[in-house]
Amino acid sequence: MADEEAKKVVLDKSDFLNWYNDVVDVSFLCDKRYPIKGMNVWTPYGWKIMQLMDASIRRECDATGHQEVCFPLLIPKTEFQKEADHIKGFDSEVFWVTKGGNNELDIPLLLRPTSETAMYPIFSLWVRSHNDLPLKTYQIVNVFRYETKMTRAFIRVREIHFFEAHTCHKDAEDAEMQIREDCAIMDRVARDLCLPYILTRRPDWDKFAGAVYTIGVDTLLPSRRTLQLGSIHQYHENFARPYDIKYEGSDKQHHYAHQTTYGMSERMVGAVIGVHGDNKGLILPPAIAPFQFVIIPIPAKGKLEQVMDGARALEKELIALGHRVHLDARDVRPGSKHYDWEIKGVPVRIELGPRDLENGTLVFARRDLSTKRTVKRADLKEEALKELKDIEGELLSRAKAIIDDGIRRASTVEEAKEHLSKGWDGIIQTGWCTDMDCAAEMEKALDKAFLGYPLKDVASGELLFSDGQCMICGKPTKDVVYLGRSY
Amino acid sequence: MADEEAKKVVLDKSDFLNWYNDVVDVSFLCDKRYPIKGMNVWTPYGWKIMQLMDASIRRECDATGHQEVCFPLLIPKTEFQKEADHIKGFDSEVFWVTKGGNNELDIPLLLRPTSETAMYPIFSLWVRSHNDLPLKTYQIVNVFRYETKMTRAFIRVREIHFFEAHTCHKDAEDAEMQIREDCAIMDRVARDLCLPYILTRRPDWDKFAGAVYTIGVDTLLPSRRTLQLGSIHQYHENFARPYDIKYEGSDKQHHYAHQTTYGMSERMVGAVIGVHGDNKGLILPPAIAPFQFVIIPIPAKGKLEQVMDGARALEKELIALGHRVHLDARDVRPGSKHYDWEIKGVPVRIELGPRDLENGTLVFARRDLSTKRTVKRADLKEEALKELKDIEGELLSRAKAIIDDGIRRASTVEEAKEHLSKGWDGIIQTGWCTDMDCAAEMEKALDKAFLGYPLKDVASGELLFSDGQCMICGKPTKDVVYLGRSY
Repeated sequence: MADEEAKKVVLDKSDFLNWYNDVVDVSFLCDKRYPIKGMNVWTPYGWKIMQLMDASIRRECDATGHQEVCFPLLIPKTEFQKEADHIKGFDSEVFWVTKGGNNELDIPLLLRPTSETAMYPIFSLWVRSHNDLPLKTYQIVNVFRYETKMTRAFIRVREIHFFEAHTCHKDAEDAEMQIREDCAIMDRVARDLCLPYILTRRPDWDKFAGAVYTIGVDTLLPSRRTLQLGSIHQYHENFARPYDIKYEGSDKQHHYAHQTTYGMSERMVGAVIGVHGDNKGLILPPAIAPFQFVIIPIPAKGKLEQVMDGARALEKELIALGHRVHLDARDVRPGSKHYDWEIKGVPVRIELGPRDLENGTLVFARRDLSTKRTVKRADLKEEALKELKDIEGELLSRAKAIIDDGIRRASTVEEAKEHLSKGWDGIIQTGWCTDMDCAAEMEKALDKAFLGYPLKDVASGELLFSDGQCMICGKPTKDVVYLGRSY
Repeated sequence: MADEEAKKVVLDKSDFLNWYNDVVDVSFLCDKRYPIKGMNVWTPYGWKIMQLMDASIRRECDATGHQEVCFPLLIPKTEFQKEADHIKGFDSEVFWVTKGGNNELDIPLLLRPTSETAMYPIFSLWVRSHNDLPLKTYQIVNVFRYETKMTRAFIRVREIHFFEAHTCHKDAEDAEMQIREDCAIMDRVARDLCLPYILTRRPDWDKFAGAVYTIGVDTLLPSRRTLQLGSIHQYHENFARPYDIKYEGSDKQHHYAHQTTYGMSERMVGAVIGVHGDNKGLILPPAIAPFQFVIIPIPAKGKLEQVMDGARALEKELIALGHRVHLDARDVRPGSKHYDWEIKGVPVRIELGPRDLENGTLVFARRDLSTKRTVKRADLKEEALKELKDIEGELLSRAKAIIDDGIRRASTVEEAKEHLSKGWDGIIQTGWCTDMDCAAEMEKALDKAFLGYPLKDVASGELLFSDGQCMICGKPTKDVVYLGRSY
């Protein structure tokens, strides 16, 4: 479709943002020519990647006893206004429906930016007794933000493909357990994407509107800026009170439910593109690649049918083994096919020529390393699995290296500036006395923003503490913070 | 959740519409208490049914080479207005977004009522050469209609869960082939729902806004009213011209593409409820039942653990056989479990007690016939398959009987009134001379509306012709029409 222009672009990842825009175009994951800013068209290939990510999320949510629901998109203004902090957080960035047909609506409706205020009036009907708890729900839907900043495919858009889990619990302790479970779900989903990440508890001024606290899940891009993959919020009773979500306990008393939420979005697609891709195009982790294998027949005079038969048999066998496979039977040169699938990031290209048929071999070409090796056709099952596993390992270790190199400690502004002076512009780990003036000065001095308090241990939710000093005032403190820059 | 009230309702299908509303409530497929008219909440059980229907549609579309895409929800007013008939058809029933944050939008945006006007500006970029054709796409999304009539769960709502296929072809012939393929897809999806249906070519005054012709797919409910399951539209060049969808042919000339669309929606859920359900609740076809089997352990004193072990082993085996199964391990009486799953329409309840364990048997209780039979545990694989297949056969044949009994021929108004005088109020098949005055008189005399021209043969798309006469003026005609009443 957009192939002709695509072939003219030279990709250069050292210029990250331009590279990112270009790689989205040449791999045609979305079409940005839709006539509304920040609203792009999901092409078949891009949508398939998203659906595979959704499948990974559904698998983990279902396995942990979450139930999928689907709430209406539109929210009456009157419901939206019930939680004061929440509306303040979203007031300037929602789309408003004010007319139906030719009628002005009595009560304006907004397009959900997130679904707390759609769900919680109904949760107040669903939650009655302690037997109804925990209530663990999720939905995968489109949400809307009226972004005024510059938009960017998958990373900052106005219609967002969104996952949101909403849970109700009997008490704070049970809600805390949920936060731990959310972290474990994140971990398994991120493994499918071969994306390591940083967990931080956001500073209070950066928490979700209405939350008691927010845990941010960020990955680090090669440009050493963070990209938020997801966020997990502890609400305690903050929403249960205005929305009257109460249950009768075994003590026959009525209690407010404790609530949590967990959100992820199409930004995960952006992260996969940004972390794994290179100057040849996308590199897709096998778990979310629309095709894990592409078969490229290498025809020879008079042997075309024989090679095609072999290719079809191979395709069939790989599908039977549970892999996603595409046989590229187009009447174009193998080199051109190679090029097309390289841009699209297919993990393994399998070349099959007449000599391979004679020798009982196949050639596996890895996208991540650009290496080829010959494998025995008879070992297809084991070799195919091994190849995908090796690719996952390679992608994960490369991505880990980005994070390892992306965080440096500094006790003083001078020390931080020393790091920054050498062309390195990553996350600074330092101490903070919790005084707001020190925070402001820190951000200004480093030209970075608070990412949050890093979590030491996901299983317990414990923060990383250490004996140190505030970067600005020098007071002793145990609070460790990260400062960085985000997309 | 809504169980307590549910148990107080007495279902009576002879009063169809009230029965329908009640059965949706007691089976809790959606929650109607959302504070916007015609926008309901999909509960986990209802949503699972819809997702299984979506899976059936996806399977058929993927198998016929359609590609899934996802276009933005919002459409600029300027794009929407390009096809004149189309906007006239939808003008009074769209929701308008006029504000973003606190700003009035320069160009109002509408919530898609269907996606022609969102997709076709982009199709004009995607379709360039005859090599790009046919372009076969579909999406499964939420669409919106500002209904002013009375709303009804799944049948007439304002936010609609919607399937829409959009295709582009090189010529009218290829587009006609697509319509045939759509009919074949419909047939396979309807089989999963155990729903026979009637295909008619809608009269011109009832075709889709902008279409050359529309084929309606209707099922007949026990109240002898039709419910539209889907519709298939031939556009020829009607949209390609205003949206400039042109391709270069092998003749090096530019031609307009020919287009078709195909739509289905959550109405299919309404049809399944209405056609199959009875006074005990839902009856779900196995292909779209969230649980095909529910295992109800029948405990006996001192043997609870033994029975539970057996139930768990049974659950595991059925899941391994590829069935959807739920083991109801709640601490309530078996009779109460029986009752709950009967309302929810689970095709087969399996009872397992200590004697069954000793004898190596199971009791299969069928929801559709309310019969029980004992099967050998060792024959589980075959018996489970057989049971589901038998249920499908039974549901389909019951539904066919509704249609067979629902259509009667009449050459004259008197003859039709004779049918109607006996408490039968179904579809009248008659002749029509194609004069509009006769059509109006016919509709008035019978108090029914034109459903359309019945298709004789789906494979060829041929209409049913016969030697007959116009019901009103008596002129000889070959045009056969159906008249009925719809929801």
